[in-house]
Amino acid sequence: MILAKVTGYVVATQKCDELRGSNLLLIARLDDNQQPMKDKSWVAVDHVGAGLHDIVLAEEYFALNSERYRAMSVVAIVENVFRDR
Amino acid sequence: MILAKVTGYVVATQKCDELRGSNLLLIARLDDNQQPMKDKSWVAVDHVGAGLHDIVLAEEYFALNSERYRAMSVVAIVENVFRDR
Amino acid sequence: MILAKVTGYVVATQKCDELRGSNLLLIARLDDNQQPMKDKSWVAVDHVGAGLHDIVLAEEYFALNSERYRAMSVVAIVENVFRDR
Amino acid sequence: MILAKVTGYVVATQKCDELRGSNLLLIARLDDNQQPMKDKSWVAVDHVGAGLHDIVLAEEYFALNSERYRAMSVVAIVENVFRDR
Amino acid sequence: MILAKVTGYVVATQKCDELRGSNLLLIARLDDNQQPMKDKSWVAVDHVGAGLHDIVLAEEYFALNSERYRAMSVVAIVENVFRDR
Repeated sequence: MILAKVTGYVVATQKCDELRGSNLLLIARLDDNQQPMKDKSWVAVDHVGAGLHDIVLAEEYFALNSERYRAMSVVAIVENVFRDR
Repeated sequence: MILAKVTGYVVATQKCDELRGSNLLLIARLDDNQQPMKDKSWVAVDHVGAGLHDIVLAEEYFALNSERYRAMSVVAIVENVFRDR
Repeated sequence: MILAKVTGYVVATQKCDELRGSNLLLIARLDDNQQPMKDKSWVAVDHVGAGLHDIVLAEEYFALNSERYRAMSVVAIVENVFRDR
Repeated sequence: MILAKVTGYVVATQKCDELRGSNLLLIARLDDNQQPMKDKSWVAVDHVGAGLHDIVLAEEYFALNSERYRAMSVVAIVENVFRDR
Repeated sequence: MILAKVTGYVVATQKCDELRGSNLLLIARLDDNQQPMKDKSWVAVDHVGAGLHDIVLAEEYFALNSERYRAMSVVAIVENVFRDR
Protein backbone atom coordinates (compact mmCIF):
# COMPACT_ATOMS: atom_id res chain seq x y z
CA MET A 1 0.00 0.00 0.00
CA ILE A 2 1.11 3.54 -0.59
CA LEU A 3 0.59 6.65 1.49
CA ALA A 4 -1.26 9.21 -0.59
CA LYS A 5 -3.18 12.45 -0.34
CA VAL A 6 -6.63 12.92 -1.84
CA THR A 7 -6.13 15.77 -4.32
CA GLY A 8 -9.40 15.67 -6.21
CA TYR A 9 -11.96 13.45 -7.84
CA VAL A 10 -13.09 12.26 -11.23
CA VAL A 11 -16.50 12.44 -12.89
CA ALA A 12 -17.25 9.58 -15.26
CA THR A 13 -20.75 8.59 -16.31
CA GLN A 14 -19.77 5.95 -18.88
CA LYS A 15 -18.05 3.28 -16.86
CA CYS A 16 -17.89 -0.46 -16.27
CA ASP A 17 -20.74 -1.91 -14.24
CA GLU A 18 -18.25 -2.87 -11.53
CA LEU A 19 -17.48 0.81 -10.89
CA ARG A 20 -21.10 2.00 -10.66
CA GLY A 21 -21.91 3.76 -7.43
CA SER A 22 -18.22 4.18 -6.58
CA ASN A 23 -16.57 7.46 -5.72
CA LEU A 24 -13.46 7.87 -7.85
CA LEU A 25 -10.81 9.79 -5.94
CA LEU A 26 -7.72 11.39 -7.43
CA ILE A 27 -4.80 10.63 -5.15
CA ALA A 28 -1.12 11.65 -5.19
CA ARG A 29 1.61 9.50 -3.67
CA LEU A 30 3.50 11.12 -0.76
CA ASP A 31 7.26 11.42 -0.54
CA ASP A 32 9.26 10.86 2.66
CA ASN A 33 8.39 14.41 3.79
CA GLN A 34 4.66 13.71 3.35
CA GLN A 35 4.42 15.94 0.29
CA PRO A 36 2.56 14.89 -2.90
CA MET A 37 4.99 13.72 -5.60
CA LYS A 38 4.88 15.26 -9.04
CA ASP A 39 3.18 13.15 -11.75
CA LYS A 40 2.54 10.28 -9.32
CA SER A 41 -1.24 10.46 -9.36
CA TRP A 42 -3.77 7.65 -9.59
CA VAL A 43 -7.53 7.29 -9.47
CA ALA A 44 -8.83 5.00 -6.73
CA VAL A 45 -12.22 3.64 -5.66
CA ASP A 46 -13.16 4.95 -2.23
CA HIS A 47 -13.97 2.18 0.28
CA VAL A 48 -13.84 4.28 3.48
CA GLY A 49 -15.54 7.64 2.93
CA ALA A 50 -12.33 9.66 2.41
CA GLY A 51 -12.52 13.38 1.60
CA LEU A 52 -10.42 16.01 -0.13
CA HIS A 53 -6.96 16.55 1.47
CA ASP A 54 -7.21 13.38 3.59
CA ILE A 55 -4.07 11.28 3.93
CA VAL A 56 -5.01 7.75 2.94
CA LEU A 57 -3.70 4.27 2.28
CA ALA A 58 -4.23 3.01 -1.25
CA GLU A 59 -3.86 -0.57 -2.46
CA GLU A 60 -3.36 -1.18 -6.18
CA TYR A 61 -5.44 -4.29 -6.87
CA PHE A 62 -8.19 -4.56 -4.29
CA ALA A 63 -11.28 -6.70 -4.87
CA LEU A 64 -14.44 -4.86 -5.88
CA ASN A 65 -17.85 -6.34 -5.06
CA SER A 66 -17.16 -9.41 -7.11
CA GLU A 67 -13.93 -11.33 -6.69
CA ARG A 68 -13.35 -11.20 -10.43
CA TYR A 69 -12.70 -7.51 -10.55
CA ARG A 70 -9.93 -5.62 -8.82
CA ALA A 71 -9.16 -1.93 -8.91
CA MET A 72 -6.95 0.55 -7.12
CA SER A 73 -8.74 1.40 -3.89
CA VAL A 74 -8.52 3.71 -0.90
CA VAL A 75 -8.62 1.26 2.01
CA ALA A 76 -7.93 3.45 5.07
CA ILE A 77 -7.85 7.05 6.27
CA VAL A 78 -4.56 7.78 8.03
CA GLU A 79 -4.59 9.75 11.28
CA ASN A 80 -0.94 9.63 12.10
CA VAL A 81 2.33 8.51 10.57
CA PHE A 82 5.22 7.74 12.91
CA ARG A 83 8.51 7.75 11.05
CA ASP A 84 11.96 7.09 12.52
CA ARG A 85 14.47 6.14 9.94
CA MET B 1 -6.26 3.21 -12.12
CA ILE B 2 -4.47 5.78 -14.18
CA LEU B 3 -5.79 8.78 -16.06
CA ALA B 4 -4.87 8.42 -19.71
CA LYS B 5 -5.67 9.79 -23.14
CA VAL B 6 -6.58 7.61 -26.08
CA THR B 7 -3.86 8.38 -28.63
CA GLY B 8 -4.48 5.65 -31.20
CA TYR B 9 -5.25 2.00 -31.72
CA VAL B 10 -3.58 -1.23 -32.64
CA VAL B 11 -4.42 -3.71 -35.41
CA ALA B 12 -3.60 -7.32 -34.59
CA THR B 13 -5.17 -10.27 -36.37
CA GLN B 14 -3.09 -12.99 -34.72
CA LYS B 15 -4.06 -12.82 -31.08
CA CYS B 16 -5.10 -14.92 -28.10
CA ASP B 17 -8.69 -16.14 -28.16
CA GLU B 18 -9.39 -14.05 -25.06
CA LEU B 19 -8.72 -10.85 -27.01
CA ARG B 20 -10.92 -11.68 -30.02
CA GLY B 21 -13.55 -9.06 -30.73
CA SER B 22 -11.83 -6.52 -28.48
CA ASN B 23 -10.83 -3.06 -29.53
CA LEU B 24 -7.21 -2.46 -28.61
CA LEU B 25 -6.65 1.18 -27.74
CA LEU B 26 -3.30 2.91 -27.48
CA ILE B 27 -3.34 5.11 -24.39
CA ALA B 28 -0.83 7.54 -22.89
CA ARG B 29 -0.71 8.29 -19.16
CA LEU B 30 -1.44 11.91 -18.23
CA ASP B 31 0.79 14.06 -16.06
CA ASP B 32 -0.49 16.46 -13.38
CA ASN B 33 -1.24 19.05 -16.09
CA GLN B 34 -3.36 16.53 -18.03
CA GLN B 35 -0.77 16.18 -20.78
CA PRO B 36 0.31 12.79 -22.20
CA MET B 37 3.64 11.67 -20.74
CA LYS B 38 6.50 10.72 -23.05
CA ASP B 39 7.09 6.96 -23.47
CA LYS B 40 4.32 6.08 -21.02
CA SER B 41 2.02 4.35 -23.47
CA TRP B 42 0.11 1.10 -23.07
CA VAL B 43 -2.39 -0.89 -25.08
CA ALA B 44 -5.71 -1.52 -23.34
CA VAL B 45 -8.87 -3.47 -24.10
CA ASP B 46 -11.83 -1.13 -24.49
CA HIS B 47 -14.77 -1.96 -22.18
CA VAL B 48 -16.73 1.30 -22.56
CA GLY B 49 -16.72 2.41 -26.20
CA ALA B 50 -13.97 5.03 -25.86
CA GLY B 51 -12.78 6.98 -28.90
CA LEU B 52 -9.67 8.79 -30.06
CA HIS B 53 -8.65 11.72 -27.82
CA ASP B 54 -10.99 10.69 -24.99
CA ILE B 55 -9.69 10.98 -21.46
CA VAL B 56 -10.17 7.61 -19.81
CA LEU B 57 -9.50 5.54 -16.72
CA ALA B 58 -7.38 2.46 -17.29
CA GLU B 59 -6.90 -0.43 -14.88
CA GLU B 60 -3.88 -2.70 -15.35
CA TYR B 61 -5.24 -6.18 -14.61
CA PHE B 62 -8.96 -6.24 -15.25
CA ALA B 63 -10.83 -9.49 -15.83
CA LEU B 64 -11.69 -10.35 -19.41
CA ASN B 65 -14.71 -12.53 -20.21
CA SER B 66 -13.29 -15.43 -18.27
CA GLU B 67 -11.99 -14.93 -14.76
CA ARG B 68 -8.74 -16.64 -15.71
CA TYR B 69 -7.57 -13.90 -17.99
CA ARG B 70 -6.79 -10.33 -17.07
CA ALA B 71 -5.54 -7.52 -19.26
CA MET B 72 -5.07 -3.80 -19.11
CA SER B 73 -8.49 -2.29 -19.76
CA VAL B 74 -10.18 1.04 -20.32
CA VAL B 75 -12.92 0.99 -17.66
CA ALA B 76 -14.40 4.52 -17.81
CA ILE B 77 -14.60 7.63 -19.97
CA VAL B 78 -13.75 10.70 -17.90
CA GLU B 79 -15.87 13.82 -18.27
CA ASN B 80 -14.25 15.98 -15.68
CA VAL B 81 -11.26 15.97 -13.34
CA PHE B 82 -11.39 18.16 -10.27
CA ARG B 83 -7.91 18.72 -8.86
CA ASP B 84 -7.03 20.79 -5.78
CA ARG B 85 -3.69 19.93 -4.39
CA MET C 1 -0.35 -4.50 -22.23
CA ILE C 2 2.80 -3.05 -23.66
CA LEU C 3 3.97 -2.74 -27.24
CA ALA C 4 7.26 -4.58 -27.60
CA LYS C 5 9.63 -5.97 -30.20
CA VAL C 6 10.89 -9.53 -30.13
CA THR C 7 14.66 -9.12 -29.84
CA GLY C 8 15.71 -12.68 -29.09
CA TYR C 9 14.95 -15.80 -27.13
CA VAL C 10 16.10 -17.67 -24.08
CA VAL C 11 17.21 -21.29 -23.72
CA ALA C 12 16.42 -22.85 -20.35
CA THR C 13 16.27 -26.59 -19.79
CA GLN C 14 15.77 -26.48 -16.01
CA LYS C 15 12.44 -24.79 -15.55
CA CYS C 16 9.14 -25.03 -13.71
CA ASP C 17 6.71 -27.61 -15.03
CA GLU C 18 4.31 -24.82 -15.94
CA LEU C 19 6.81 -23.44 -18.46
CA ARG C 20 7.57 -26.75 -20.21
CA GLY C 21 6.96 -26.68 -23.94
CA SER C 22 6.81 -22.89 -23.97
CA ASN C 23 8.89 -20.68 -26.21
CA LEU C 24 10.55 -17.99 -24.11
CA LEU C 25 10.91 -14.81 -26.09
CA LEU C 26 13.11 -11.87 -25.20
CA ILE C 27 11.15 -8.68 -25.80
CA ALA C 28 12.01 -4.99 -25.51
CA ARG C 29 9.39 -2.34 -24.76
CA LEU C 30 8.91 0.26 -27.51
CA ASP C 31 9.05 4.01 -26.98
CA ASP C 32 6.65 6.47 -28.63
CA ASN C 33 8.74 6.34 -31.83
CA GLN C 34 8.42 2.53 -31.95
CA GLN C 35 12.07 2.03 -31.00
CA PRO C 36 13.19 -0.54 -28.37
CA MET C 37 13.93 1.14 -25.02
CA LYS C 38 17.28 0.60 -23.34
CA ASP C 39 17.27 -1.86 -20.43
CA LYS C 40 13.51 -2.41 -20.70
CA SER C 41 13.64 -6.06 -21.66
CA TRP C 42 11.54 -8.95 -20.38
CA VAL C 43 11.14 -12.62 -21.13
CA ALA C 44 7.63 -13.67 -22.14
CA VAL C 45 5.88 -16.94 -22.94
CA ASP C 46 4.78 -17.03 -26.57
CA HIS C 47 1.05 -17.73 -27.03
CA VAL C 48 0.74 -16.71 -30.69
CA GLY C 49 3.73 -18.00 -32.67
CA ALA C 50 5.65 -14.72 -32.75
CA GLY C 51 9.07 -14.54 -34.41
CA LEU C 52 12.24 -12.48 -34.19
CA HIS C 53 11.72 -8.74 -34.94
CA ASP C 54 7.90 -9.00 -34.70
CA ILE C 55 6.08 -6.18 -32.96
CA VAL C 56 3.88 -7.76 -30.31
CA LEU C 57 1.57 -7.08 -27.39
CA ALA C 58 2.75 -8.44 -24.06
CA GLU C 59 0.67 -8.78 -20.92
CA GLU C 60 2.48 -9.08 -17.58
CA TYR C 61 0.44 -11.66 -15.67
CA PHE C 62 -1.41 -13.88 -18.13
CA ALA C 63 -2.76 -17.28 -17.12
CA LEU C 64 -0.73 -20.29 -18.20
CA ASN C 65 -2.42 -23.66 -18.75
CA SER C 66 -3.58 -23.80 -15.16
CA GLU C 67 -5.34 -20.84 -13.59
CA ARG C 68 -2.90 -20.96 -10.68
CA TYR C 69 0.09 -19.84 -12.65
CA ARG C 70 0.54 -16.57 -14.44
CA ALA C 71 3.52 -15.33 -16.40
CA MET C 72 4.39 -12.52 -18.74
CA SER C 73 3.05 -13.53 -22.14
CA VAL C 74 3.04 -12.44 -25.74
CA VAL C 75 -0.69 -12.32 -26.54
CA ALA C 76 -0.84 -10.76 -30.03
CA ILE C 77 1.26 -9.98 -33.09
CA VAL C 78 0.79 -6.34 -34.11
CA GLU C 79 0.34 -5.49 -37.79
CA ASN C 80 -0.23 -1.80 -37.49
CA VAL C 81 -0.15 0.95 -34.88
CA PHE C 82 -2.17 4.09 -35.53
CA ARG C 83 -0.97 6.94 -33.34
CA ASP C 84 -2.39 10.48 -33.28
CA ARG C 85 -1.53 12.30 -30.14
CA MET D 1 9.80 -9.68 -2.62
CA ILE D 2 11.85 -6.70 -1.67
CA LEU D 3 14.32 -6.18 1.16
CA ALA D 4 13.12 -3.31 3.33
CA LYS D 5 13.65 -1.69 6.70
CA VAL D 6 10.81 -0.94 9.08
CA THR D 7 10.99 2.84 9.50
CA GLY D 8 7.75 3.53 11.31
CA TYR D 9 4.06 2.72 11.51
CA VAL D 10 0.71 4.16 10.56
CA VAL D 11 -2.35 4.83 12.73
CA ALA D 12 -5.65 4.48 10.91
CA THR D 13 -8.95 3.93 12.68
CA GLN D 14 -11.20 4.18 9.60
CA LYS D 15 -10.20 1.26 7.46
CA CYS D 16 -11.56 -1.65 5.43
CA ASP D 17 -12.78 -4.61 7.43
CA GLU D 18 -10.05 -6.72 5.90
CA LEU D 19 -7.38 -4.58 7.58
CA ARG D 20 -8.91 -4.64 11.08
CA GLY D 21 -6.57 -5.94 13.75
CA SER D 22 -3.55 -5.56 11.44
CA ASN D 23 -0.40 -3.67 12.30
CA LEU D 24 0.42 -1.28 9.49
CA LEU D 25 4.18 -0.87 9.17
CA LEU D 26 5.96 1.85 7.25
CA ILE D 27 8.81 0.26 5.32
CA ALA D 28 11.55 1.65 3.08
CA ARG D 29 13.15 -0.39 0.31
CA LEU D 30 16.89 -1.02 0.74
CA ASP D 31 19.52 -0.28 -1.89
CA ASP D 32 22.45 -2.58 -2.68
CA ASN D 33 24.34 -1.18 0.34
CA GLN D 34 21.42 -2.03 2.65
CA GLN D 35 20.46 1.62 3.08
CA PRO D 36 16.84 2.86 2.85
CA MET D 37 16.11 4.46 -0.52
CA LYS D 38 14.68 7.95 -0.70
CA ASP D 39 10.94 8.17 -1.46
CA LYS D 40 10.64 4.39 -1.81
CA SER D 41 8.36 3.82 1.16
CA TRP D 42 5.27 1.63 1.43
CA VAL D 43 2.83 0.60 4.12
CA ALA D 44 2.60 -3.15 4.71
CA VAL D 45 0.48 -5.45 6.86
CA ASP D 46 2.64 -7.22 9.43
CA HIS D 47 2.34 -11.05 9.32
CA VAL D 48 5.40 -11.90 11.44
CA GLY D 49 5.63 -9.55 14.43
CA ALA D 50 8.28 -7.24 12.97
CA GLY D 51 9.48 -4.21 14.94
CA LEU D 52 11.01 -0.81 14.26
CA HIS D 53 14.40 -0.96 12.46
CA ASP D 54 14.01 -4.64 11.55
CA ILE D 55 15.16 -5.72 8.09
CA VAL D 56 12.25 -7.54 6.51
CA LEU D 57 10.97 -9.15 3.33
CA ALA D 58 7.85 -7.56 1.89
CA GLU D 59 5.61 -9.01 -0.81
CA GLU D 60 3.34 -6.65 -2.74
CA TYR D 61 0.10 -8.60 -3.14
CA PHE D 62 -0.14 -11.18 -0.37
CA ALA D 63 -3.47 -12.76 0.59
CA LEU D 64 -5.14 -11.41 3.71
CA ASN D 65 -7.46 -13.63 5.75
CA SER D 66 -9.80 -14.07 2.82
CA GLU D 67 -8.46 -15.05 -0.58
CA ARG D 68 -10.34 -12.16 -2.15
CA TYR D 69 -8.22 -9.49 -0.62
CA ARG D 70 -4.52 -8.95 -1.10
CA ALA D 71 -2.31 -6.26 0.36
CA MET D 72 1.37 -5.49 0.66
CA SER D 73 2.65 -7.57 3.54
CA VAL D 74 5.74 -8.13 5.65
CA VAL D 75 6.28 -11.89 5.30
CA ALA D 76 9.66 -12.49 7.00
CA ILE D 77 12.18 -10.93 9.35
CA VAL D 78 15.66 -11.09 7.85
CA GLU D 79 18.60 -12.12 10.02
CA ASN D 80 21.31 -12.10 7.46
CA VAL D 81 21.87 -11.14 3.84
CA PHE D 82 24.73 -12.77 1.97
CA ARG D 83 25.63 -10.81 -1.13
CA ASP D 84 28.36 -11.67 -3.66
CA ARG D 85 27.89 -9.97 -6.93
CA MET E 1 9.56 -12.43 -16.35
CA ILE E 2 12.88 -10.74 -15.91
CA LEU E 3 16.39 -11.98 -16.58
CA ALA E 4 18.37 -11.83 -13.36
CA LYS E 5 21.57 -13.05 -11.76
CA VAL E 6 21.64 -14.80 -8.39
CA THR E 7 23.84 -12.54 -6.27
CA GLY E 8 23.26 -14.00 -2.83
CA TYR E 9 20.70 -15.36 -0.41
CA VAL E 10 18.75 -14.35 2.64
CA VAL E 11 18.49 -16.03 6.03
CA ALA E 12 15.14 -15.57 7.75
CA THR E 13 13.92 -17.84 10.54
CA GLN E 14 10.76 -15.89 11.38
CA LYS E 15 8.65 -16.11 8.27
CA CYS E 16 5.15 -16.84 7.01
CA ASP E 17 4.19 -20.50 6.94
CA GLU E 18 3.90 -20.30 3.16
CA LEU E 19 7.63 -19.58 2.89
CA ARG E 20 8.81 -22.41 5.15
CA GLY E 21 11.29 -24.76 3.52
CA SER E 22 11.93 -22.29 0.69
CA ASN E 23 15.33 -21.05 -0.36
CA LEU E 24 15.27 -17.27 -0.56
CA LEU E 25 17.60 -16.07 -3.29
CA LEU E 26 18.84 -12.52 -3.74
CA ILE E 27 18.65 -11.68 -7.44
CA ALA E 28 19.68 -8.63 -9.46
CA ARG E 29 17.97 -7.70 -12.73
CA LEU E 30 20.24 -7.73 -15.79
CA ASP E 31 20.61 -4.86 -18.22
CA ASP E 32 20.83 -5.30 -22.01
CA ASN E 33 24.54 -6.16 -21.66
CA GLN E 34 23.74 -8.94 -19.18
CA GLN E 35 25.19 -6.98 -16.27
CA PRO E 36 23.40 -6.68 -12.88
CA MET E 37 21.65 -3.30 -12.53
CA LYS E 38 22.35 -1.10 -9.54
CA ASP E 39 19.66 -1.12 -6.82
CA LYS E 40 17.43 -3.47 -8.82
CA SER E 41 17.56 -6.39 -6.42
CA TRP E 42 14.74 -8.63 -5.23
CA VAL E 43 14.37 -11.71 -3.09
CA ALA E 44 12.77 -14.69 -4.82
CA VAL E 45 11.66 -18.17 -3.81
CA ASP E 46 13.72 -20.79 -5.61
CA HIS E 47 11.61 -23.33 -7.55
CA VAL E 48 14.40 -24.86 -9.68
CA GLY E 49 17.52 -25.39 -7.57
CA ALA E 50 19.39 -22.30 -8.76
CA GLY E 51 22.82 -21.46 -7.32
CA LEU E 52 25.00 -18.41 -6.80
CA HIS E 53 25.94 -16.57 -10.04
CA ASP E 54 23.34 -18.47 -12.11
CA ILE E 55 21.41 -16.48 -14.70
CA VAL E 56 17.73 -17.11 -14.03
CA LEU E 57 14.20 -16.14 -15.00
CA ALA E 58 12.15 -14.62 -12.20
CA GLU E 59 8.40 -14.08 -12.21
CA GLU E 60 6.94 -11.54 -9.77
CA TYR E 61 3.74 -13.19 -8.54
CA PHE E 62 4.03 -16.93 -8.91
CA ALA E 63 1.80 -19.30 -6.96
CA LEU E 64 3.34 -20.95 -3.91
CA ASN E 65 2.10 -24.36 -2.71
CA SER E 66 -1.37 -23.00 -2.13
CA GLU E 67 -3.12 -20.98 -4.81
CA ARG E 68 -3.88 -18.25 -2.30
CA TYR E 69 -0.31 -17.14 -1.91
CA ARG E 70 1.94 -15.74 -4.57
CA ALA E 71 5.52 -14.56 -4.27
CA MET E 72 8.36 -13.56 -6.52
CA SER E 73 9.92 -16.80 -7.72
CA VAL E 74 12.87 -18.11 -9.69
CA VAL E 75 11.18 -20.28 -12.34
CA ALA E 76 14.02 -21.26 -14.69
CA ILE E 77 17.80 -21.43 -14.97
CA VAL E 78 18.97 -19.80 -18.19
CA GLU E 79 21.65 -21.50 -20.29
CA ASN E 80 21.75 -19.14 -23.18
CA VAL E 81 20.33 -15.80 -24.26
CA PHE E 82 20.17 -15.02 -27.95
CA ARG E 83 19.76 -11.31 -28.57
CA ASP E 84 19.51 -9.57 -31.94
CA ARG E 85 17.99 -6.18 -31.73
